[in-house]
Amino acid sequence: MAGPCAVEDRDQLLSAARSVASAGASMLRGGAFKPRTSPDSFQGLGVAGLELLREASRETGLPVVTEVMDPRDVAIVAEHAELLQIGSRSMQNFPLLREVGRSGRPVLLKRGNAATVDELLFAAEYVYREGNEQVILCERGVRGFDPATRNLLDLAAVPVLKARTGAPVVVDPSHATGRAALVPAMARAALAAGADGLLIEVHPNPESARCDADQALRPDEFSALMTEFERWAPLLGRTIIRPELELSVGAARKTEGT
Amino acid sequence: MAGPCAVEDRDQLLSAARSVASAGASMLRGGAFKPRTSPDSFQGLGVAGLELLREASRETGLPVVTEVMDPRDVAIVAEHAELLQIGSRSMQNFPLLREVGRSGRPVLLKRGNAATVDELLFAAEYVYREGNEQVILCERGVRGFDPATRNLLDLAAVPVLKARTGAPVVVDPSHATGRAALVPAMARAALAAGADGLLIEVHPNPESARCDADQALRPDEFSALMTEFERWAPLLGRTIIRPELELSVGAARKTEGT
Amino acid sequence: MAGPCAVEDRDQLLSAARSVASAGASMLRGGAFKPRTSPDSFQGLGVAGLELLREASRETGLPVVTEVMDPRDVAIVAEHAELLQIGSRSMQNFPLLREVGRSGRPVLLKRGNAATVDELLFAAEYVYREGNEQVILCERGVRGFDPATRNLLDLAAVPVLKARTGAPVVVDPSHATGRAALVPAMARAALAAGADGLLIEVHPNPESARCDADQALRPDEFSALMTEFERWAPLLGRTIIRPELELSVGAARKTEGT
Amino acid sequence: MAGPCAVEDRDQLLSAARSVASAGASMLRGGAFKPRTSPDSFQGLGVAGLELLREASRETGLPVVTEVMDPRDVAIVAEHAELLQIGSRSMQNFPLLREVGRSGRPVLLKRGNAATVDELLFAAEYVYREGNEQVILCERGVRGFDPATRNLLDLAAVPVLKARTGAPVVVDPSHATGRAALVPAMARAALAAGADGLLIEVHPNPESARCDADQALRPDEFSALMTEFERWAPLLGRTIIRPELELSVGAARKTEGT
Repeated sequence: MAGPCAVEDRDQLLSAARSVASAGASMLRGGAFKPRTSPDSFQGLGVAGLELLREASRETGLPVVTEVMDPRDVAIVAEHAELLQIGSRSMQNFPLLREVGRSGRPVLLKRGNAATVDELLFAAEYVYREGNEQVILCERGVRGFDPATRNLLDLAAVPVLKARTGAPVVVDPSHATGRAALVPAMARAALAAGADGLLIEVHPNPESARCDADQALRPDEFSALMTEFERWAPLLGRTIIRPELELSVGAARKTEGT
Repeated sequence: MAGPCAVEDRDQLLSAARSVASAGASMLRGGAFKPRTSPDSFQGLGVAGLELLREASRETGLPVVTEVMDPRDVAIVAEHAELLQIGSRSMQNFPLLREVGRSGRPVLLKRGNAATVDELLFAAEYVYREGNEQVILCERGVRGFDPATRNLLDLAAVPVLKARTGAPVVVDPSHATGRAALVPAMARAALAAGADGLLIEVHPNPESARCDADQALRPDEFSALMTEFERWAPLLGRTIIRPELELSVGAARKTEGT
Repeated sequence: MAGPCAVEDRDQLLSAARSVASAGASMLRGGAFKPRTSPDSFQGLGVAGLELLREASRETGLPVVTEVMDPRDVAIVAEHAELLQIGSRSMQNFPLLREVGRSGRPVLLKRGNAATVDELLFAAEYVYREGNEQVILCERGVRGFDPATRNLLDLAAVPVLKARTGAPVVVDPSHATGRAALVPAMARAALAAGADGLLIEVHPNPESARCDADQALRPDEFSALMTEFERWAPLLGRTIIRPELELSVGAARKTEGT
Repeated sequence: MAGPCAVEDRDQLLSAARSVASAGASMLRGGAFKPRTSPDSFQGLGVAGLELLREASRETGLPVVTEVMDPRDVAIVAEHAELLQIGSRSMQNFPLLREVGRSGRPVLLKRGNAATVDELLFAAEYVYREGNEQVILCERGVRGFDPATRNLLDLAAVPVLKARTGAPVVVDPSHATGRAALVPAMARAALAAGADGLLIEVHPNPESARCDADQALRPDEFSALMTEFERWAPLLGRTIIRPELELSVGAARKTEGT
């Protein structure tokens, strides 16, 4: 899954969408509702952003994953996106988890930045309880003490989660490291650790990005990485696919009694 | 501010409310909407809990502080409580922050368990932007690595916050330590560090509490602590008061440009 | 216990020693062997520093506490200091712990910056095993994620340690916060939490200090703090004393079976 | 580099050494001096352990890496081992770093469990200053908050270190995870992240190990992992070699001005 941190405008999004599609991405990511630490930061285009994502999806054929932050926005986001992202700040937003559980859409649930694996699995349980078994778990780094990276990517969580649940596990090396130069190495490591997928920020012009400019790959960097993975994946016994999410996620649930 | 973690039933709440009132508490706390890690844990009584809080308030004269987790519940909670609590899991729930900002009620904003002081101040800013200047900040412990305590109480955040903002700063030693035996020492330390108030869990029967049983004080323990503080506070240049929140919090804001 | 981070020269040390003595400190602290992250930083005066500490002790009557980092230096440091400090980086330097255990001198054992309370007590056990029961435990902050302070002072460790051992527990608010402006508040909080003593950096000229310049109090600031404590301590049931260490520490050990 | 956590007896060590040699390991690891949290834990065989390591090395042809904890032991350890390990607890044991710097032997420097990358590079600098440029850096996990793993393996430190220094970087997935079942996934991930080597615990009988029993691989598990890596490494542009350490490490230093 690849695309810009935030949907900024039509040109930016379509350019990003075309480049990630041609590089072989399986889904288009892009934020319309952006949770930002400061109220002065760009908060996303909202519904207008959702409509641009839809347009980019129609053009490229890529399904869309985008974040929903407010239980009152679940219906509108579910109309525009194939996969609803719960961001790390919302991992324990229980009203929101219940609402996406009722949406009928698969859910990408990101681990909170100080959440244990147990807490992540309990959060997924809130979605399952509403009858929605299509949850993809995402490791995106926890709070660390070393300013060398933005977060501390906990890749051991991947095999731990895979052993404890049948849900797909993906990794977001872009938010985890916060530095584009580290993304390829951590993307490789995530796959080698057993991740089922990756969430990678790609921006046609990282320098001018309105959000997380330091961590986005340029389209050519992303394309080179995908080429490498296509060569690589078979050795790990994996195939790179364009997932039919409803099929691949459904019925995958297998959680031990926590 | 004192009272049980969760409103469990009428007897429990009224008993707790009477004991904290007679011990000299300034406000009654109690959860009606409870954010719980597991969906199997007691989730609170909801609106029925709010009504019991109102009744306890009428009887004891104590104003009520209680948590709101869902932006759609802000109106109903604001009808029943004098002070709206934003829990640590919701510190960066921006739609919720905006909604309480518009509620006209003062807000008790708890620090997230991996939030920096900067991030806490930015979260307060989301409330201020809606025209609500009545924010009380609360330190309640951050995620640590030592199982000796439930969280790691960061008391240095108190003077740091006091130096950077005019908002009142309170401390929750109950959630921070997770162990009743440590609450008195940490309550004393919080006041000595400059805290403007305390949030203490008191339960008529801690052993039978449906939530956080290990950390609630018994009424006699709370009463002893209050007696001690009344003797102590003047030496710190402080007075123990029953705050008229609208007066004490309003116009207190003074944040530096972050 | 008060004094400069490092012994820099005769004038600096004697000036600091006189001021802390006249303010009522119980012991003189000062580093002759300095553990420094970078080999380019000032490493201390070594044996010459020990001799200056001795001289300052003779003049002021204050016993000396100073760090020993190398098992081969224990004998020489023990000749010059009444109390041997094991720094946080050395908390699990087991050969060193054994050597100070055999020295006949009381030991001030600082908690490592990512050590649990259990690990600190086990480290003390290495000293006890050599027949040395005179161990003072010191909380000085653990590694945190918020740059607002240098370390994260874990004051709850004070009552936890007091409940689990009979050893005296002291707190170092200077290293914990790394900021002189926060030292008084955290010193007050430490005493309120039950600490038996404090380790405070005082420098005649903090701006020119060769080590940890930002965290040292000026002599007048230290003196004001001591005056405040003399007024305060009785309310906490404490007296400020010039300890006869051999008496106060000896026979104090009481550790539960960990 | 593979072998048991601790040298326990002749049979255990020779059995482990033979199995790791036949599986294609490049070096034999095994602890003779063991830093243990509790003085009641097995502390290693000391010099007798070093002699067993020598014997196992003669028989298998594998060079030996073993930990040295005490500056007074550097000479004897350097006589028996080709590579001197500085454990994570000793990363800032500056007298020890200076002593191994003078030993003429290459040094394997493990990152402390709460050390930043900067602090690790500064520690290496203490070795370099004594004229010893042969330092191998090792990531072995930092202190985390999730009991799901023993430590939190920070694999992003691998590309960060590779970008900042010419020193080889290896990873210890055994200590990092503390669980044998996670070692293969994390070993794969470490290589994919760019690690130059691995430090893996292998014990002929993990259940009976006197130290870290939960994290050692059985010989057949290790052998399967090595077979996989031989197939894999070329795709990463790497070759699995039996390093001539003096050649591969020497002249490799390239540190930016920190």
